[in-house]
Amino acid sequence: MLEDLKKKVYEANMALPKYDLVVFTWGNVSGVDREKELVVIKPSGVAYDDLSPDKMVVVDYEGNVVEGDLKPSSDTATHLELYKAFKDIGGVVHTHSPWAVSFAQAGIDILAAGTTHADYFYGDIPVTRAMKEDEIVTDYEKQTGSVIIETFEERTIDPNQIPGVLVNDHGPFTWGTSPDNAVHNSVVLEKVAEMTYHGLMLNDRSSRMDQSLLDKHYLRKHGKNAYYGQ
Amino acid sequence: MLEDLKKKVYEANMALPKYDLVVFTWGNVSGVDREKELVVIKPSGVAYDDLSPDKMVVVDYEGNVVEGDLKPSSDTATHLELYKAFKDIGGVVHTHSPWAVSFAQAGIDILAAGTTHADYFYGDIPVTRAMKEDEIVTDYEKQTGSVIIETFEERTIDPNQIPGVLVNDHGPFTWGTSPDNAVHNSVVLEKVAEMTYHGLMLNDRSSRMDQSLLDKHYLRKHGKNAYYGQ
Amino acid sequence: MLEDLKKKVYEANMALPKYDLVVFTWGNVSGVDREKELVVIKPSGVAYDDLSPDKMVVVDYEGNVVEGDLKPSSDTATHLELYKAFKDIGGVVHTHSPWAVSFAQAGIDILAAGTTHADYFYGDIPVTRAMKEDEIVTDYEKQTGSVIIETFEERTIDPNQIPGVLVNDHGPFTWGTSPDNAVHNSVVLEKVAEMTYHGLMLNDRSSRMDQSLLDKHYLRKHGKNAYYGQ
Amino acid sequence: MLEDLKKKVYEANMALPKYDLVVFTWGNVSGVDREKELVVIKPSGVAYDDLSPDKMVVVDYEGNVVEGDLKPSSDTATHLELYKAFKDIGGVVHTHSPWAVSFAQAGIDILAAGTTHADYFYGDIPVTRAMKEDEIVTDYEKQTGSVIIETFEERTIDPNQIPGVLVNDHGPFTWGTSPDNAVHNSVVLEKVAEMTYHGLMLNDRSSRMDQSLLDKHYLRKHGKNAYYGQ
Repeated sequence: MLEDLKKKVYEANMALPKYDLVVFTWGNVSGVDREKELVVIKPSGVAYDDLSPDKMVVVDYEGNVVEGDLKPSSDTATHLELYKAFKDIGGVVHTHSPWAVSFAQAGIDILAAGTTHADYFYGDIPVTRAMKEDEIVTDYEKQTGSVIIETFEERTIDPNQIPGVLVNDHGPFTWGTSPDNAVHNSVVLEKVAEMTYHGLMLNDRSSRMDQSLLDKHYLRKHGKNAYYGQ
Repeated sequence: MLEDLKKKVYEANMALPKYDLVVFTWGNVSGVDREKELVVIKPSGVAYDDLSPDKMVVVDYEGNVVEGDLKPSSDTATHLELYKAFKDIGGVVHTHSPWAVSFAQAGIDILAAGTTHADYFYGDIPVTRAMKEDEIVTDYEKQTGSVIIETFEERTIDPNQIPGVLVNDHGPFTWGTSPDNAVHNSVVLEKVAEMTYHGLMLNDRSSRMDQSLLDKHYLRKHGKNAYYGQ
Repeated sequence: MLEDLKKKVYEANMALPKYDLVVFTWGNVSGVDREKELVVIKPSGVAYDDLSPDKMVVVDYEGNVVEGDLKPSSDTATHLELYKAFKDIGGVVHTHSPWAVSFAQAGIDILAAGTTHADYFYGDIPVTRAMKEDEIVTDYEKQTGSVIIETFEERTIDPNQIPGVLVNDHGPFTWGTSPDNAVHNSVVLEKVAEMTYHGLMLNDRSSRMDQSLLDKHYLRKHGKNAYYGQ
Repeated sequence: MLEDLKKKVYEANMALPKYDLVVFTWGNVSGVDREKELVVIKPSGVAYDDLSPDKMVVVDYEGNVVEGDLKPSSDTATHLELYKAFKDIGGVVHTHSPWAVSFAQAGIDILAAGTTHADYFYGDIPVTRAMKEDEIVTDYEKQTGSVIIETFEERTIDPNQIPGVLVNDHGPFTWGTSPDNAVHNSVVLEKVAEMTYHGLMLNDRSSRMDQSLLDKHYLRKHGKNAYYGQ
């Protein structure tokens, strides 16, 4: 079942080492079939070299394995929370890419500091609050999803316009219209983290860009008046 | 038409990923035919792996497509402003290379801090002022060219001696005698940004080199008394 | 003798350049046969390209060469001290990987600052005290092992839960259940050093993670309630 | 003539891009025949991909071309000064490797901060004073050699024990017993610059290692009591 989605999720997972976002098994990508309410995700702890489309695991929205011989990613419950709350997204990525993790460990947002950021993220990429002990002890992966959703709700951020987040002391999750697009956003988040880190070191004042420049770059690539690309 | 220039512009574009200056489609190179007043440029949003010489787009100085099935780079208007104002240049490059972007986001010049810089850039590489809201809202890409030209005029910098600039909160543009030479300058700008960043972190005093050393290195490679190379 | 262990130690040594942990001959891996009380280790100063399983050197717990035509690693006495003191470990790695060395030279622990760290190291990775002149002059490599063991004893750290250390002004040693696992921990130590460095630069307060988050991540991968992987 | 030395110098030059020490033509290696008092050096401004052993240029101690169709490196006069002053060396390397250049631009020594450094350099790697205007204007490359030699004489540093230097606001020169060994020292200098930079950022006190540890590591690899290697 879902052979096409399994292939896409497999290929998106294989893009993680290609773009240097992961070492070992430190990342996972999933994709969703919105009609069937099923999610395809990487199996837990399996090396990328050993993956194939048929090893992808199919789970329902409650995390029950519907198809597949392997256990799904230990982060599956986080992915599911995101799919249920963010209705328009088609793929989710989690990595421990080093620049993004550095901001997550520092507990500070990646400010929208330049046009590279603005081309993909329509504002600051937020870091969640630290999770509470009871959230960590019980249903940790599901609660990780909840604290992401809380962050977007409390700060009234549109997840379609800011397709990524830093979980405090943990690392980035990104999403997108498809598994491939979610990986794309993961690469961008890592690159803008690197650029913004060095910019902050050079000059810690005036780190956020002008709103009009943010608007221009985001909107020339997104929405009905976009004119970038073919 | 312009088959030779198309090939050169194609090859110069392909050098951007080779030198790690771009990911995805984050860069573009153009070349100019000064007699015909035509510019050859990368198509917008097309992946480097999918490029070929015949996909390059030919535009006139007003940006009208003269030949080509694809839309030209969204940054075309910036390239055209530079060709019209800087009469001696043959190629223009725009990238989001990370060290250069870091200085652009910090809004500070790349000081001429050592001989690597002096071998190619005869003084500081300037950052433009921030663009104004009306410049961003209307004719943004053309205005990006204008603010670059304004920077060189107000600071009386010779664009043939400083073949590059940082656009504030955006990134680098470089140029040169040919598309290939402009890419060469783009690589140098990225490398000297990296070196100067770390030098500044180690010692934030005395960051600019002596004028006589700057003269020596620039002039042993450029002008009538140059003696570097064969 | 010990053909299987020699092959494993050989392969673990070859993983060091693969993971960019070493240049030239700046690293060595060993493995132990607990029943025979013999250790297999890389020969001293031999380039990785020239290694083969049969060039591995077999030594006893006192460092006498039992088999092999080449001299064992100059760090052999350190490895032996670790095997004798840490009874459960099966492999030891020493490298001069650059991020880890930076912390060793700064003389500061790698704080447990995020979940990447917590997935493998159940607390801070300690730096030893500086070695004393007499320890350096006499039996230096053996004393290097002793100061590591002293660090774990004085701070009551379980070497099975923190499988690595920074020797002051020197560099990292890691260990694990096998030579391969020890290399794995060496890669992780280098990565978390990189992440924690940048996190500290961004925000030097609050650099240690919550204990409950540390528990969660370490224990979902280790011990009887682990649920990560297949 | 000197076919064997040409081959060695060619191979040592080709090692520069292999070890990521150069881009474009930003580096050169030479070797000396002490009996014949002839130096073999890379031609000026020729890309590494276009080099071959027969393109190496042979010059005498006054810089006259004795054999070869191409102009020798523009830095030849610096190499010659070093060969004449430092009687035991067999090869010289100049690069613009980025970490070393960062220290050169900051104008600060690379302190002996750890054992990686001590394994090859028996103390701090010095930075020269800034060159004076008249030294820059007249016989610049020869004067570059002179200021290096002055640095070693005034600080009574043995060039056989510290086989490298940073020229102020310029970059590193290294040397060694052979062209290959000089490249080896160039790689080490770049690596220890990287490590020491990050160590300084983490902790700017206590950056120099203990003399006894420096002695131990240098002397276990060099001199009559060395015991590292086969």
